[in-house]
Amino acid sequence: MDSVLRQSKAMCPFLKKATPATLRALSTSTRPQASQCGGTISKLQLLGQRCPVMGKALAIQSARVGCKAPAPIVGASAVSGVRALSGHSKAKIHTSRPKEARAVDTPMFAPRESVKFPPAAPTNRKANVAGATTTTPSGPNAKFDYAGFYEAELEKKHRDKSYRYFNNINRLAREFPQAHGAKKEERVTVWCSNDYLGMGRNPQVLKQMHETLDEYGSGAGGTRNISGHNKHAIELEETIAKLHAKEAALVFSSCYVANDATLATLGSKMPDCVILSDSLNHASMIQGIRHSGTRKIVFKHNDLEDLESKLASLPLHVPKIIAFESVYSMCGSIGPIEEICDLAEKYGAITFLDEVHAVGMYGPHGAGVAEHLDFEAHQQGRPNGTIMDRVDIITGTLGKAYGCVGGYIAGSAKLVDTIRSLAPGFIFTTSLPPATMSGARAAIEYQMEYKGDRRLQQLHTRAVKEALDARGIPVIPNPSHIIPILVGNAELAKQASDMLLNDYQIYVQSINYPTVPVGQERLRITPTPGHTKEYRDQLVDAIDEIWSKLDIKRTSDWAAEGGFIGVGDANAQPSQALWTDEQLDIDHQIAKEIKDSKPIDGFMETLLERETRDAARSASATA
Amino acid sequence: MDSVLRQSKAMCPFLKKATPATLRALSTSTRPQASQCGGTISKLQLLGQRCPVMGKALAIQSARVGCKAPAPIVGASAVSGVRALSGHSKAKIHTSRPKEARAVDTPMFAPRESVKFPPAAPTNRKANVAGATTTTPSGPNAKFDYAGFYEAELEKKHRDKSYRYFNNINRLAREFPQAHGAKKEERVTVWCSNDYLGMGRNPQVLKQMHETLDEYGSGAGGTRNISGHNKHAIELEETIAKLHAKEAALVFSSCYVANDATLATLGSKMPDCVILSDSLNHASMIQGIRHSGTRKIVFKHNDLEDLESKLASLPLHVPKIIAFESVYSMCGSIGPIEEICDLAEKYGAITFLDEVHAVGMYGPHGAGVAEHLDFEAHQQGRPNGTIMDRVDIITGTLGKAYGCVGGYIAGSAKLVDTIRSLAPGFIFTTSLPPATMSGARAAIEYQMEYKGDRRLQQLHTRAVKEALDARGIPVIPNPSHIIPILVGNAELAKQASDMLLNDYQIYVQSINYPTVPVGQERLRITPTPGHTKEYRDQLVDAIDEIWSKLDIKRTSDWAAEGGFIGVGDANAQPSQALWTDEQLDIDHQIAKEIKDSKPIDGFMETLLERETRDAARSASATA
Repeated sequence: MDSVLRQSKAMCPFLKKATPATLRALSTSTRPQASQCGGTISKLQLLGQRCPVMGKALAIQSARVGCKAPAPIVGASAVSGVRALSGHSKAKIHTSRPKEARAVDTPMFAPRESVKFPPAAPTNRKANVAGATTTTPSGPNAKFDYAGFYEAELEKKHRDKSYRYFNNINRLAREFPQAHGAKKEERVTVWCSNDYLGMGRNPQVLKQMHETLDEYGSGAGGTRNISGHNKHAIELEETIAKLHAKEAALVFSSCYVANDATLATLGSKMPDCVILSDSLNHASMIQGIRHSGTRKIVFKHNDLEDLESKLASLPLHVPKIIAFESVYSMCGSIGPIEEICDLAEKYGAITFLDEVHAVGMYGPHGAGVAEHLDFEAHQQGRPNGTIMDRVDIITGTLGKAYGCVGGYIAGSAKLVDTIRSLAPGFIFTTSLPPATMSGARAAIEYQMEYKGDRRLQQLHTRAVKEALDARGIPVIPNPSHIIPILVGNAELAKQASDMLLNDYQIYVQSINYPTVPVGQERLRITPTPGHTKEYRDQLVDAIDEIWSKLDIKRTSDWAAEGGFIGVGDANAQPSQALWTDEQLDIDHQIAKEIKDSKPIDGFMETLLERETRDAARSASATA
Repeated sequence: MDSVLRQSKAMCPFLKKATPATLRALSTSTRPQASQCGGTISKLQLLGQRCPVMGKALAIQSARVGCKAPAPIVGASAVSGVRALSGHSKAKIHTSRPKEARAVDTPMFAPRESVKFPPAAPTNRKANVAGATTTTPSGPNAKFDYAGFYEAELEKKHRDKSYRYFNNINRLAREFPQAHGAKKEERVTVWCSNDYLGMGRNPQVLKQMHETLDEYGSGAGGTRNISGHNKHAIELEETIAKLHAKEAALVFSSCYVANDATLATLGSKMPDCVILSDSLNHASMIQGIRHSGTRKIVFKHNDLEDLESKLASLPLHVPKIIAFESVYSMCGSIGPIEEICDLAEKYGAITFLDEVHAVGMYGPHGAGVAEHLDFEAHQQGRPNGTIMDRVDIITGTLGKAYGCVGGYIAGSAKLVDTIRSLAPGFIFTTSLPPATMSGARAAIEYQMEYKGDRRLQQLHTRAVKEALDARGIPVIPNPSHIIPILVGNAELAKQASDMLLNDYQIYVQSINYPTVPVGQERLRITPTPGHTKEYRDQLVDAIDEIWSKLDIKRTSDWAAEGGFIGVGDANAQPSQALWTDEQLDIDHQIAKEIKDSKPIDGFMETLLERETRDAARSASATA
């Protein structure tokens, strides 16, 4: 194959200039196997496909060879790299030409004779000969085996243990946080719903929805432009804008769609835009950036130094979007919003903050972590100059703490109008039903005025974290309302989840790859205001027993290994909860009393018990 | 600049081989200005960006020059084409590298000194010098003007009259097809909703939703994998699978998401996949194909010859998806499903059929046009071997004829499981609320058992088409339930729509670019079973008056010009409605009688009147 390499080098300035080491590196490095789509293909193959000469040659070659096996990851020699490039093995061709693909009228697999442009270079001829010798038996005369393809994809999921089995869980509004399973008479306690505050059964929300259903029917009946725009949409968007103290808001089918559509639109429209994306960003943002077709630079999770070095490397005039989250849902970590706003200002970027797991949950009005960081100012109605005020685009959901479905963005009037006018994912889809929109608005307004649900949610979270900690169950430390219990093994995590469901009637979904990296499999627990002491005790006991039965590592085991992602890490800073004692109205004097008494039940359980007792007392005194 | 061209040709085999004519064509042809995103950029610039040598050079150049103006469409000479390529004007860089972009850690705009790979070729140096002379005053030291960017984008929409003003329309369940506007006491008759059958106010659907709301609350509380999978999802998907006589179905937030996610997943996963797409396909399919990153070949709308020639040019073994619709919503045309299935079989393709505007509306059970084509067989419960049976993937919506919200795919169990397992747009989003899913199921089941609504919808459609035709109002002929009235001018269409709303309290949204091509602007009318004679007369009178007031072309005017898109075309075949008289239970004898009497009111109105009278009679006889 040396002659192919020589000939290629003679033809191509890139190959000519590239050192053997570079070619080797390119031919062995593969595109990351994305969880969503992808597959393996060497970077060299990719470059080849992009080349107007090589790309055409590879396409023709691939059609002629007609082998069905996926492209092998070529070996560690420059020569084999070039072999791959010259079509010896069939490359997976992603032309990645989303836009001009529309204009392609002529087939790309035309027989050699009809290929007019560009003319085939000598290398291609050589490649064709080389390729022809490896024709697989399936040959170009067999149709593609679609059923076999589906089967193979599913088999892959089974093999790497990422195949998902859905649990049939029917959350009961009148028995929150209980649900029934496949049988209606069964009862299961749900410990992993994102209806964090139980708003899904809030009487005011339900009343609003019933009334709207009766008055305006079950569906919107059209897109926002064609008969699907109504007072429910207008009022909901006004409420959201008010919640985040922004000029405007826009509602989408989901926050997945909101993130996808907004990032794809901005990234593709702003000339030369670069999107800087936190490494733990949600799939919807990753897809939005991918769909924008623009450049993405990933910065290390919550790493300001890394982010700054990347920002600094870009020219000031280039438009940049820093995309990140406030609460990262699978580990519960919290983004450094203020510091990122500082960097954005310094380097001429805008901030895109996903508050999906935070809206309803943080801040005096439930607007999220950005609001929480200026608790006092927002409580007093002074949003100007706050951190939330500085964030350019906030996205949130109506489907988690607000208990309904749908997503949104909030920002300046011009930004929102731009997305409204340009994003196909907004324009070409049916509006949310009137009852969904009016219910969501009722939920937001309820939480804007009432802090009690999110306060209780936080107290219950603290209690569960404390109790698990006391049993040596390894909770990944974080300052939020999420309780990720580290298992570290896909099969064990699934077994623990199954055992909780079958033996203890407790539903906690195991979180495996690709949602979390392999080796970081976990159970993700989300307490709600409805998870009272009885439920909490059941949960902690059950987990403790299962950890023993399945011999899952406890905190001390992780510590013995030097710690892992914050668990059992002797040097780790203690994680300071975002909600302070003061914000949770925990009386300093009472807290001190309880701590001093060293209660057997633990501090939080004792505090909660005392609070319940006091509430009952004052209720009976009033009665 | 001749020296640049010479030098470029010496370096680049592509430029060397390409003729001046080719270069000119490439430098003047721009990427189609997609309605959704895009912008203008010549194909030559795009090829340059894809080239490993040129792409890097252009990126560096662009960063150095730092001009903010969009890339001009370069002139009609090969030299200016190369000038654009060599960075004289700043190119818009869409790297279009969705996947490996994740791995890009090093900035792409690094200062020249740090560019190590690939080494800069002489052409680049020349280009840099050439580029430097055109540095704009804004320079690289100014931050990007985001607000200015939004404003400019909106200004563009205003300029080309595609800026959308939403009408506040609140459809009243108890006064269907009436709505109120901004004021609650106003009344407007809605003539453009996609709640084609009035299912949004169907008592059985609403009852089901009320009950589910009370029992299971307002939201699902999680993704399908994490606490959002329940009996409502299971039952709905079973019902959909049964409706389309497929093994399985999968529900998404919307059919926009269903189309996008399914095509993106299949297109990106199947090696070398080619997607053949009807030129009038909906934005959601266009986006799905774009997002797949695979090759797309557009075939002329409903043109089997064109489709076959394109299929025939592809090797048999290459996976192909033919993506098309049954009812094209903006013109009402109907896809040749059987013939496309034949072609798919012949050339080893699979069929992806969007029945969004047809489900609930066609077929004995409302499964859509594919079902309608074997009316008898499906009525008798024999789906095997029917056209619907042969379609590989059917997608549909729960938000139009079924009156709720959401979308779905139906197909083989393996296909559905593959999409379920791989599509991020399905995996990473909150489930639809239980009440939405149970309501949609009730709507499907209702329509599976009752043909009356879609029958009446068809009769009303015929009546309106006939009446408009009698007044010379130009309806674009089609065999479906959609009544597109040709206006042919964006401003006139908006004026007619505004006048209908303000002067006649009739809401019909005007459909302008980019939803339809410039010059084909129209009013799109969708009758429902609720649009009784009184409403129909109002509509036809109002349109007639407005056509005179605004002097909009009538059918005879179009005919005088030789006809346009089927309107006033003397040679056009009369459009045969998909629902036959027999399927609509129109008695042949009665029809003959009415026709012979040449009624002043027209055939359809007379038939409908007679039917109403007979129904009243038989009701009083029973009473």
